[in-house]
Amino acid sequence: MLDGLTISIDAMGGDNAPDIVINGIEYFLTHEGAGRTARFLLHGDAEALAPLLDNAPRTRERSEVFHTEKTIAMDDKPSQALRKGKGSSMWNAIASVKGGQASIAVSAGNTGALMAMSKLQLRTKKGVQRPAIAASWPNLEGNMTVVLDVGANVECDAAQLTEFAILGEAYYRAIYGKSNPSVGLLNVGTEEGKGNAVIKAAHSRLAESQLGLNYIGFVEGNDISKGSVDVVVTDGFTGNIALKTAEGTAKLISSFFSEALSDNLWSKFTTGLNLVALRKLKKKMDPRRANGGVFLGLNGVVVKSHGGTDAIGYATALNIAMGLAESDFQNAIDARLDALHDEDDNIGFIS
Amino acid sequence: MLDGLTISIDAMGGDNAPDIVINGIEYFLTHEGAGRTARFLLHGDAEALAPLLDNAPRTRERSEVFHTEKTIAMDDKPSQALRKGKGSSMWNAIASVKGGQASIAVSAGNTGALMAMSKLQLRTKKGVQRPAIAASWPNLEGNMTVVLDVGANVECDAAQLTEFAILGEAYYRAIYGKSNPSVGLLNVGTEEGKGNAVIKAAHSRLAESQLGLNYIGFVEGNDISKGSVDVVVTDGFTGNIALKTAEGTAKLISSFFSEALSDNLWSKFTTGLNLVALRKLKKKMDPRRANGGVFLGLNGVVVKSHGGTDAIGYATALNIAMGLAESDFQNAIDARLDALHDEDDNIGFIS
Repeated sequence: MLDGLTISIDAMGGDNAPDIVINGIEYFLTHEGAGRTARFLLHGDAEALAPLLDNAPRTRERSEVFHTEKTIAMDDKPSQALRKGKGSSMWNAIASVKGGQASIAVSAGNTGALMAMSKLQLRTKKGVQRPAIAASWPNLEGNMTVVLDVGANVECDAAQLTEFAILGEAYYRAIYGKSNPSVGLLNVGTEEGKGNAVIKAAHSRLAESQLGLNYIGFVEGNDISKGSVDVVVTDGFTGNIALKTAEGTAKLISSFFSEALSDNLWSKFTTGLNLVALRKLKKKMDPRRANGGVFLGLNGVVVKSHGGTDAIGYATALNIAMGLAESDFQNAIDARLDALHDEDDNIGFIS
Repeated sequence: MLDGLTISIDAMGGDNAPDIVINGIEYFLTHEGAGRTARFLLHGDAEALAPLLDNAPRTRERSEVFHTEKTIAMDDKPSQALRKGKGSSMWNAIASVKGGQASIAVSAGNTGALMAMSKLQLRTKKGVQRPAIAASWPNLEGNMTVVLDVGANVECDAAQLTEFAILGEAYYRAIYGKSNPSVGLLNVGTEEGKGNAVIKAAHSRLAESQLGLNYIGFVEGNDISKGSVDVVVTDGFTGNIALKTAEGTAKLISSFFSEALSDNLWSKFTTGLNLVALRKLKKKMDPRRANGGVFLGLNGVVVKSHGGTDAIGYATALNIAMGLAESDFQNAIDARLDALHDEDDNIGFIS
């Protein structure tokens, strides 16, 4: 039995697993996680992991390997993964949370398979219809904005959006330590009466509620990057498209700048002189800083690292996992969900 | 009677109207529009326009002023605008298209009011259920991507999305001169089976059709900036949020770069040496380059310039208007819509 917080790891999930997984844990234990008492249950191929652990002494000291040869491919469909995936490294990583051996699971594997297995094993929390995936986004205020759902549910009703508000708010408090983060509902305008029937119903429900949420009403697409709101609630269709549109735009604008700065020899030379500033910039724009989609609304927490991430990005996902494991955010969610559904009964809310 | 192409102008619409409108026309006639035979019907306050026209000799020579004192405010609701807006500069600009005196109308006024008045006066084209707003987006290939709908319809069915594909494709050909632009449907993934029921039905309809559209299937949010597709079809809710999210992200990334480049005296100095490259960049990223949302699917074309634009941005909207007025894209749309609905009848398509 390991003491301290225990994190369950799908060591074989991800484009460059298991290498980036072990290197990511080692990086975490050397940097953000230094001095923290985390322990790791490593689910994966013991033979492949052994030489990696030889080069990762901090990780080796704090880990236990649970051997399995079965893995889930990055392109397996969720239904395939469920059918043939029992006993895989991904399945077993979640099973450790279900069994209470670990407080949280981390995987850089296939998102659809991970969500399907998480739902099947951990089950949806009482008072939540469907889990959501939350993503973090840097903003102009120098903080992070949390957006959910970014892809688990292509269609949502008003009751689900209301639940997402509670999940996202508790998550924001746990990870970013802000006591009363603001929550907005993503819409095509901020005026009353904008949007479709679902959005309007969710807005009325949140505006009327006495749950103590800092609900600020409708927000628009540009508010995500502006930092005018901490938690942005939306359905998984819109959230996914917003996230990917933002990624694409960030690449576009960065490429415009890179081209301009290396346009000719003279600008290459002067840009070279600017290296310190550019290095700072690179750090600021590093997508690894925001790595880690979190599955919320289950009886247990699962953190999804980007499949193509490297060790530093993986360490960011571990940092989020640690922050969540150390907080009591699941209890905070339960309390508020109870209050929400009591209120639903009182006001006769049916979405 | 004026000869050549005639464009009808809402001279009072926009945050800085009528100044930017007149200066925008003058800029257009001095640059892109030099040598073209455009004429302008200026709807607005003759007294306010007179001194501006004194300083805009090219515009004065090619314009006729139609006096009205009535204007639509930027924050008037569409319903208010319809009630009290008859005879306003915006109303009259559209009326000139309806009456055949002008081929196209341009306004930098209130979008909701402009759409409501355009629908009421011009009516929706035969074979189109609802008009859409198309926006242009720069992409990594150095071209433009057209996205529609970006806000006219918060909910769309499959038949509407199919019609938007036809509208957007014809628009792309008219404006960017590409003979067979590709068309994609915005979704949360590119695999078959992704998305909601409406998206799937629209996909089947477009994939089966023999209309000669270069339909490439599902595209994702990041494809908009990548330039992997020319025309992106989506509902007005998703399109609006994608557009605003992209605007916000562009500002965020630009601010990261600006900060990095002016971080300290040394980088200020070396950045100063880089001015030529940075000026080129500024031109590339200029949002005025993409100014002009176009209302498609009506019996007449209306171009909406951004309300806060300046003369150069207004000239871009005029350039789009001219391009459309010179093309036969409305006839191309009619022909393909007829073919679409014949096909609908043959295959018994009901969305």
